Formats: sequence, structure tokens, C-alpha cells
Amino acid sequence: MNHMDFNTLATEFTQFYYKQFDQDRSQLGNLYRADSMLTFETSECQGAQSIIEKLVSLPFQRVEHKIATLNAQPASANGDVIVLVTGQLLLDEERNAQNYSQVFHLMPEGNGYYVLNDIFRLNYGM
Amino acid sequence: MNHMDFNTLATEFTQFYYKQFDQDRSQLGNLYRADSMLTFETSECQGAQSIIEKLVSLPFQRVEHKIATLNAQPASANGDVIVLVTGQLLLDEERNAQNYSQVFHLMPEGNGYYVLNDIFRLNYGM
Repeated sequence: MNHMDFNTLATEFTQFYYKQFDQDRSQLGNLYRADSMLTFETSECQGAQSIIEKLVSLPFQRVEHKIATLNAQPASANGDVIVLVTGQLLLDEERNAQNYSQVFHLMPEGNGYYVLNDIFRLNYGM
Repeated sequence: MNHMDFNTLATEFTQFYYKQFDQDRSQLGNLYRADSMLTFETSECQGAQSIIEKLVSLPFQRVEHKIATLNAQPASANGDVIVLVTGQLLLDEERNAQNYSQVFHLMPEGNGYYVLNDIFRLNYGM
């Protein structure tokens, strides 16, 4: 991905990310670096290898993300972008989707971007 | 707020923010600067004055935020912090709370912090 308008970047990144996640999440490592951080529910890890190990270890096989809302803002004058996604997650043979929220902090690097911050939480209703 | 552990900062900031929002949201201006950005649902604005005008114009009087989940990560080596909140919002005389997600990007400034990025979205179920 070359540097581009932050809304276009946010849209293209999230479409790519969830497509790859849902097809084969073991291949997401290129998006993370040694300083990348993942919070997945209450688990925290750092570094591309730890992050991919965590994602691969999640106890589901089939997964489908559906984006409900997507918003982005420039996060500094350096070209980094914050993205907030809300959406639905459908797992394995479950019939009921779960609502989730995820924030990505995308950092420019060369002609592309990587994920510095990634926080994922399921949303539980009252 | 002096500089502190990012989890403590995130907790203290969000507690202060929502308490002040729910008591009198016209007084939140000190937390924003000229470069601060707010996305509230599909509305976007920039700068402390525009942000407060937007918040004050929201069509409810009584409001109560309840935090369900709160996670934070350092967003650079400069001390800025990203916070993802999920929670419930109870408005006026409504009986049913609405789920929401909000991300704050907190920037160090002198001995304290200000909000550079603020994205708020309601979560609608399937």
C-alpha cells in the first residue's frame, strides 16, 4: 500500500486485514513488527511472532468478520492513522454473531504501513 | 495529570472524562487543543471550540456512561497512549442502554495530556 488518503488507507487496510484473517490468519505476520502490540480481550502480547502465535491459537476454525462502522483520523503529522472498527464476528457453527470493536494504529514505513497498536474487544450487551 | 503508567493514565483519564461529560460536557474544552479531532458517529470536527460545540449540541440532557471494558497501549516512544473503551450509554428517560465504543489518543503536553484523537460510535447489534 502506498501512502494515501487516511480514509482510503483505513478502508483498504481493514478489508485486506479481515479477508486475510478469515482465510488464513497465520499469514498476517507481515503486518506487524517487533514493536507491535496486540490486546485481544484481556491478553496482551508484543512482536509479530507472539502476535501471530496468539491469533493462530484462538479456539475457532471458521471465522467471518463483518464491518458495521469504520472511522479513521490522522494520528500525527507523520502520516500515522488511527482506525476504529465496530462489527460482527461469526465463529464456526454458531448462528449468533458477536459484536466487537477493534482499533488499529497504522504507522508509515517505506512505501507502506504496519500495525503498531491493535486492540480487540467483544462487546457484551447489558 | 502527571506522566504515569499508561494503564493508570487510561483509567484516570476515562473516569474523569465521563464524570465531567455526564455532569457538564460544556467543560471538557480543556482536554482538547487546536489540532484535536472528534468523530462522533458520522460527524467530524476539529479544534477544541468546534468539538465542545458539537458535544453541547447533542440532543440529550441527562447522560450516563458506564465503562464495560478499558484497554490501553503506548502509541509511540513519546509517551502518547491509545485507549479503547467499550461501554453503555443511558440517555434521558430511556430505559435501554446503548452500547458504544470510543477510542482516545492521549498526547503528553507539559506535565499532563490532551486528547488528539477521539472517535465515538454506537454499536448496533445484528
